[in-house]
Amino acid sequence: MTTVVSIYDFCIPVLARGLANMSAILEKAESHAAARKVDPAVFAQLRLFPDMHPLSRQVQIACDTAKGAAGRLAALDIPKHEDAESTLADLRARIAKTLDFVKTVTAAQVEGAERRTIEIKFPNATWKFTGLAYVTDFVLPNFFFHESMVYALLRKSGVAIGKSDFLGNIQ
Amino acid sequence: MTTVVSIYDFCIPVLARGLANMSAILEKAESHAAARKVDPAVFAQLRLFPDMHPLSRQVQIACDTAKGAAGRLAALDIPKHEDAESTLADLRARIAKTLDFVKTVTAAQVEGAERRTIEIKFPNATWKFTGLAYVTDFVLPNFFFHESMVYALLRKSGVAIGKSDFLGNIQ
Repeated sequence: MTTVVSIYDFCIPVLARGLANMSAILEKAESHAAARKVDPAVFAQLRLFPDMHPLSRQVQIACDTAKGAAGRLAALDIPKHEDAESTLADLRARIAKTLDFVKTVTAAQVEGAERRTIEIKFPNATWKFTGLAYVTDFVLPNFFFHESMVYALLRKSGVAIGKSDFLGNIQ
Repeated sequence: MTTVVSIYDFCIPVLARGLANMSAILEKAESHAAARKVDPAVFAQLRLFPDMHPLSRQVQIACDTAKGAAGRLAALDIPKHEDAESTLADLRARIAKTLDFVKTVTAAQVEGAERRTIEIKFPNATWKFTGLAYVTDFVLPNFFFHESMVYALLRKSGVAIGKSDFLGNIQ
């Protein structure tokens, strides 16, 4: 039988969709801030709890998870993006450049990546995965976790968003 | 070439892992509540914002997303679970019975489900997906969204959890 699904299907378009949904959510937050004359930098600094990352960092980590996955699965250099965003518009620009990179990755480039070894080095540890486990155990849960924290921060701050903004257009 | 990944790989074990992680997080919340002599029903009723679902409902929806996916992809009847949980222990029992069902589903049962039509009927609408789009556009983001809301509610209430609890054991 032929391969009817590939690791590409469960990763690259899923991340692209999530990035686009996160950007649309931030756009609603920008309108909300503008209507109430709130500095959009205030929204970028929102935290759920004092020792949790602020909204800006949640967006950055979601973006880094997505570009890391696209680069590693396709065996491409991962573009470096400085963490210098301070407004919601900056964060949407960060998402846009991440999305530009993610969208360059093709199904052919990641073919067979499920069997390849993916290594992620940290100062004190190295994570070693098959490409499959990298996507299922780390990339997807981590990406959606940070996108969800962005949603939670804005939703509890009164921005008019609902789960259909998080999921995007279903049909 | 042979099929090296299947829709099973990106759905059933991913949901099972997420359910187990969510249960472990609730267990930490139970210990936290017990140590502080807080009624665990208080934790089940936590909300991020007045018009958002409480923690109990976030767990129920995550569970329903998981059992719905397992049942629909395998073309099995989806077990009905009453939404009667009021404590963290009740919610862990709900997760346990969901996990029991999800784990019964085999790769052979969902083979080819990526091409099948999945319909979800609501009072005012019907969603119609391929099995692939059902998993990528709805099941995974929705499951992780609700698991993340559970995390956010407990983390912001001072329960000592970190992202490693959300992701589970990576290596």
